[in-house]
Amino acid sequence: MAKKEFSVTPYEVKGSVDYEKLIKEFGTELIDEKLLKRIKKHTGELHFMLRRKVFFSHRDMNWLLNEYEKGEKFYIYTGRGPSGKMHLGHLLPFLFTKWLQDKFKCKTIIQITDDEKYLFNNKKLEEYTKQGLENIKDIIAVGLNPRLTEIMIDTYNSKTLYNNAIHFAKRLTVSTVKSAFGFNDSFNIGQYFYTSFQAVPAILESVRKGKNVPCLIPLGVDQDPHFRLARDIYPKLGYYKPAIIHSRFLPPLQGTQGKMSSSIAESAIFTTDNKETVKKKVLKYAFSGGRKTLEEHRKYGGNPDIDVSYQYLYQLLEPDDKKIKEIYEEYKSGSLLSGELKLIMIEKANKFLEKHQKARDKAEKIIDKFLIKD
Amino acid sequence: MAKKEFSVTPYEVKGSVDYEKLIKEFGTELIDEKLLKRIKKHTGELHFMLRRKVFFSHRDMNWLLNEYEKGEKFYIYTGRGPSGKMHLGHLLPFLFTKWLQDKFKCKTIIQITDDEKYLFNNKKLEEYTKQGLENIKDIIAVGLNPRLTEIMIDTYNSKTLYNNAIHFAKRLTVSTVKSAFGFNDSFNIGQYFYTSFQAVPAILESVRKGKNVPCLIPLGVDQDPHFRLARDIYPKLGYYKPAIIHSRFLPPLQGTQGKMSSSIAESAIFTTDNKETVKKKVLKYAFSGGRKTLEEHRKYGGNPDIDVSYQYLYQLLEPDDKKIKEIYEEYKSGSLLSGELKLIMIEKANKFLEKHQKARDKAEKIIDKFLIKD
Repeated sequence: MAKKEFSVTPYEVKGSVDYEKLIKEFGTELIDEKLLKRIKKHTGELHFMLRRKVFFSHRDMNWLLNEYEKGEKFYIYTGRGPSGKMHLGHLLPFLFTKWLQDKFKCKTIIQITDDEKYLFNNKKLEEYTKQGLENIKDIIAVGLNPRLTEIMIDTYNSKTLYNNAIHFAKRLTVSTVKSAFGFNDSFNIGQYFYTSFQAVPAILESVRKGKNVPCLIPLGVDQDPHFRLARDIYPKLGYYKPAIIHSRFLPPLQGTQGKMSSSIAESAIFTTDNKETVKKKVLKYAFSGGRKTLEEHRKYGGNPDIDVSYQYLYQLLEPDDKKIKEIYEEYKSGSLLSGELKLIMIEKANKFLEKHQKARDKAEKIIDKFLIKD
Repeated sequence: MAKKEFSVTPYEVKGSVDYEKLIKEFGTELIDEKLLKRIKKHTGELHFMLRRKVFFSHRDMNWLLNEYEKGEKFYIYTGRGPSGKMHLGHLLPFLFTKWLQDKFKCKTIIQITDDEKYLFNNKKLEEYTKQGLENIKDIIAVGLNPRLTEIMIDTYNSKTLYNNAIHFAKRLTVSTVKSAFGFNDSFNIGQYFYTSFQAVPAILESVRKGKNVPCLIPLGVDQDPHFRLARDIYPKLGYYKPAIIHSRFLPPLQGTQGKMSSSIAESAIFTTDNKETVKKKVLKYAFSGGRKTLEEHRKYGGNPDIDVSYQYLYQLLEPDDKKIKEIYEEYKSGSLLSGELKLIMIEKANKFLEKHQKARDKAEKIIDKFLIKD
């Protein structure tokens, strides 16, 4: 934190993330207009998270599309560390995955890393597994197709995972893991080994089919270091490098520092929060880009770029470009007040959650259709 | 190797092992007459490997017998790293295990560590698994009771192993593994993680029964570091420390340096060698403690303590104490010549192998009775 103002690893996101600097640091590529056009050629339309650069960075998307255009279908792999209840920020990659699945008719593998959460935190393993099953309801609720989607829970599928992971682990030294994740010798051997489990689904379809199948991984950019290692090692084992598409983080209610955390209840809107709770949290905690007084706000206008309610609408809750532009301009001009913006956001969030929670209740009954046997 | 003349780890045995020094270095206890008497009270007789201190050292055998005398039955855990074909030296712990199983009517778990051999060596994983299945024939051939014996192959039982191993791994730092095994940062993360797999069978019966069950591990002394870690960590997880009983190594044919290795074909008698091969190997390679000339030998006598043929008879092939004493004395006095001693050993080895190979052929058909399902 001495030289730069932020740091991003799978195990900690600190400070206010400068995504352009992060791209340089991680060595990824910006998603540019040319790439968007190329994606649109196949999907007909662009998801608003692409139009708005919520998914802002990638690795090897052009290669993936080359393969696709040659007739090689890809599959999607993403995942969830079940540290606690899911909040709106956690839904981003899954909502986007659902869109990709629909557009490309993709096989999709989702990994629930209960073992990881156990190895890095303090609760009992069973609690993370149980939390994982809760999270799966949220994941199914985004509308994934059970015929195209497999959900792996690490401790349910540890045979498949371990027996593939050892090939990866054999080629990964402690020294490399240290530099990728910032670990030292006081970290436990499970933590060091774990990344080899997270790498497995990126080649699992290739293992099953006995030939290389391209893989696309949509994820929060903090998870990139796992797959930088995967992209380094898999070609040595004869597999393709997985392509990756990275999203920003939805900020915590308190402001644009770091990543929203489910361990601080007030910093997040959970998928299971009721209308009243959402309203209270937003009114009380959502960081505002408005001015100190009504007069100043009317005169100078608010700052939507740091206003959390606006960011939630922009990144997740208001897919309509015309409407989001209006909100932006009205807020910036001062005609829309912070309290009014919050009410728009609360209404949108509650509408979103009402639909989500209905789907979540139904999901409970079909979980078994998604879980895979070892 | 600067200060001491030998070194012993699970991954390398170098030099001529001084077992008394090793006991001090490892912090284990010598098996003394008092302990032997105590064992004999329960077994009626003592296995010649106990009488002759082939099994020479232990950890917590007195505690184990305390528990046994209070009515708490123990189970046995031992294993095999399937690096190649098995030789006579590899049979030592299994022959002794069979005896313990008979005498104490013990449940027995045997682990075949195909993953370990893959992580530390250069062949394909499948080859170690296949080799493991070959080795299992030798293990069954010693006469283990299928109703009391479970054989785990790491890649067959990786679900059970991983889901238990992560509790162990969480409490074991990279730093501790470094000092136990002499690893550095250039070792791979699979090698670091592996010891947590080897630790699992030492508590598996306790996990299954939901209460602590004492465990006894007979093994070659080079494997002790794995279980020093296990004994350190398991009490923190609420389990008993496993008791251990350590054997010496059967020396390579070429002499008493190090441990017999199956990677140098001439250094070992394999369980599948035919009579002619055994004869040739012993005559050509077995290090002799005899004198340079017939005259000198008759005059000064031979040295049985460094004579490999004598050591094989003493540690494995001649259970009769009276006969082995006669051989010792005749060789020492010079009345028994080196060539004659070799012929005695060859005859004994071939008789032993004839019986073993018959049992091994039959074992093939009953392997499934021993393998456990995940």
